[in-house]
Amino acid sequence: MTLLEIIEKKKRKNELSEEEIHFWIDGMCRGEFPDYQISSLLMAIVLNGMNREETFYLTDAMLHSGETIDLSAIEGIKVDKHSTGGVGDKVTLILAPLLSSFGLKVAKMSGRGLGHTGGTIDKLESIPGYRVELERDEFIKQVNEVGVSVISQSGNLVPADKKLYALRDVTGTVDSIPLIASSIMSKKIASGADFLFIDVKVGNGALMKNIEDARELAKTMIEIGKRYDKKTVCILTNMDEPLGYAIGNALEVQESIDTLKGMGPEDVMELIIKVAGLIVSKTQNIELEEAEQQCFKKFNTGVAYQKFEEMVSRQGGDLSKLEISKRIFSVRSAKAGYIAKIDALGLGEIARKIGAGRLTKEDKIHYQVGLLLNKKVGDFVEVNEELVKVYLDDIDIKINEILDCFVIQEDAVEKEPLIYEIVD
Amino acid sequence: MTLLEIIEKKKRKNELSEEEIHFWIDGMCRGEFPDYQISSLLMAIVLNGMNREETFYLTDAMLHSGETIDLSAIEGIKVDKHSTGGVGDKVTLILAPLLSSFGLKVAKMSGRGLGHTGGTIDKLESIPGYRVELERDEFIKQVNEVGVSVISQSGNLVPADKKLYALRDVTGTVDSIPLIASSIMSKKIASGADFLFIDVKVGNGALMKNIEDARELAKTMIEIGKRYDKKTVCILTNMDEPLGYAIGNALEVQESIDTLKGMGPEDVMELIIKVAGLIVSKTQNIELEEAEQQCFKKFNTGVAYQKFEEMVSRQGGDLSKLEISKRIFSVRSAKAGYIAKIDALGLGEIARKIGAGRLTKEDKIHYQVGLLLNKKVGDFVEVNEELVKVYLDDIDIKINEILDCFVIQEDAVEKEPLIYEIVD
Repeated sequence: MTLLEIIEKKKRKNELSEEEIHFWIDGMCRGEFPDYQISSLLMAIVLNGMNREETFYLTDAMLHSGETIDLSAIEGIKVDKHSTGGVGDKVTLILAPLLSSFGLKVAKMSGRGLGHTGGTIDKLESIPGYRVELERDEFIKQVNEVGVSVISQSGNLVPADKKLYALRDVTGTVDSIPLIASSIMSKKIASGADFLFIDVKVGNGALMKNIEDARELAKTMIEIGKRYDKKTVCILTNMDEPLGYAIGNALEVQESIDTLKGMGPEDVMELIIKVAGLIVSKTQNIELEEAEQQCFKKFNTGVAYQKFEEMVSRQGGDLSKLEISKRIFSVRSAKAGYIAKIDALGLGEIARKIGAGRLTKEDKIHYQVGLLLNKKVGDFVEVNEELVKVYLDDIDIKINEILDCFVIQEDAVEKEPLIYEIVD
Repeated sequence: MTLLEIIEKKKRKNELSEEEIHFWIDGMCRGEFPDYQISSLLMAIVLNGMNREETFYLTDAMLHSGETIDLSAIEGIKVDKHSTGGVGDKVTLILAPLLSSFGLKVAKMSGRGLGHTGGTIDKLESIPGYRVELERDEFIKQVNEVGVSVISQSGNLVPADKKLYALRDVTGTVDSIPLIASSIMSKKIASGADFLFIDVKVGNGALMKNIEDARELAKTMIEIGKRYDKKTVCILTNMDEPLGYAIGNALEVQESIDTLKGMGPEDVMELIIKVAGLIVSKTQNIELEEAEQQCFKKFNTGVAYQKFEEMVSRQGGDLSKLEISKRIFSVRSAKAGYIAKIDALGLGEIARKIGAGRLTKEDKIHYQVGLLLNKKVGDFVEVNEELVKVYLDDIDIKINEILDCFVIQEDAVEKEPLIYEIVD
């Protein structure tokens, strides 16, 4: 068997065997194949596809390329969530403590920002003192005692995915359902939870541009989950505008705290209640409506926020020291009208440029900078009314670039729903 | 503009612009792009294709990546030929002197063997003393005086093709009509002739597996030729069995000499007369049948062979010293019956293994070794009758591997035609 034979097979739209997929992934991890052969195979997969069987074998080969986390020492139902990536997506910060307040166990490993999308670990590091790296024993102890811990992903979790992702990023081979599904699911299975929840973002700013593709991705992941006896539920959500008002690390932590106290933006609240309600109803066998009611209560009674505070302080973080930049700049609308579109990808790129994200792997994040929207799609804006507050550090910004992210029209706007559908 | 954007475009089946194709080829020749991006783009081209316009731009960008040969100092009509590669294909050795005997000018640059197919330059080097490298002036002088010279391809002719070919060979991206057409035509246009003749091989042992693809390749090349004002004629020929009886360098030179004397194998004669007749009829404005008659005469009167001898001796070669290995081994049939198939690719590989070709670029060719078929498809063979004579050097051979290349059956065999069609 050679990798060239495998490339030829996929080029001719043939199904790859379990053996062939392992040969590829195992050999790649041992550094036996040149990148130019791997990228040629990746493009053949992007264009000719992989069926469910092949996608499972790929997931399994990737899963076994590194360590897997054993969470059996944690009592109770372990839940995990994942988002395919969005702008202003602070769901983990809110959902993790909320779920733990129901007695569910959230032993969560998160990643750093990638491209224009932020990363949960970067957001948590904006809290002074917060340790994102815990020893395995300490992590498990905290989850058993507090119910929740969010730490940085282990360096040896699915090394095959790190290798593949780096190559896909620079060879135009990111947008493939089997490649995305196997990348997500190998990491989630390796992380050891019993119940997986995945938020598949749909829209211009997301990898999935339409609902059909998003649904196919969801179904593929659910089937992979089944093979490992992991209940997997997906939600397809709109990523045509940023989630909430805040984009940037400390700003998003602040917005998460507001939400945990029951005072979050409407769309963030809607998404969290829907997701948490679903997970609680499915794991505790109670009606969805009842579960959603209980979520509201966890916010209003302060229980959810308390869990967050407990997690943060246990991991060394000091919320009283959370700082947001004092160099604030208001971007105002040049005309009056209804907001028809807000370019999430564009604003994500701007946030990245002013320091909220990285342009190269070596860049240092400026935790205190970011954007705070004053308007969302469907809102009316007056001439000279504020559209966005920009929190700046030492990097400056072009106002027109921000204004270009807003489409304002005379007619009222019919807003797209935030949540398209649940797939399970 | 970035190469990644170009990859994304081709991945989405969009047409690449002239500017984009030049950006790719020019940057690649300057070493600006990593191989893994180029191979990803190549696979996207193999699977999503290129239209005639893109294929022309690619040819043109490749053509301008290196030097082009100016043959204007040669008087008369300069003709050139190319074959997409076969086993036992000694057509150049016969056709070049034959055409020059009509007053046509053949200033031909040929290549070395690649994979299981032999190379004209390797074959000529089996003639002791033959110089395959001539200075430009000497080359042109010889073509003006003798009418024919076959030399080795200049190292700086279409460097973009060398780069691309090396990568295509190891990334499963060889079999693409636009990539094959631009590779052949860029080299042919750079070589400077007025009239191009291309033998497109069809069959199991060839790049084009069926007539439809071969016809499309032919039409693509003819259209490219038109853009440079070069008359291009293609012939689609069967490559299901080796051409002639001889496979191996000195053996093929010997068979070429026999053919030039009018005593060649039936299929070699048929192909040469058809091709030469076509070229002569088209360039001299005479009827095809009349042209073919004249070709026969050139053989029978010894004029064609005389041209060959003149070219060889002018380039230092001594035909009296041509040697064929004395260690001969007869492979005999284990059963009686009609020869239904002869695996050209298989025999080509065996010839390569015993030293007639190279396994790595550094290997030295054994000029005196090779295979001499005793039977062709359609022939009857008795039990224990000879199928092949093997001329060996110091490398041994497995008899079963050779026998496996022959399919023998009880029923008589309906032979496929050698020449499928002319495309012009």
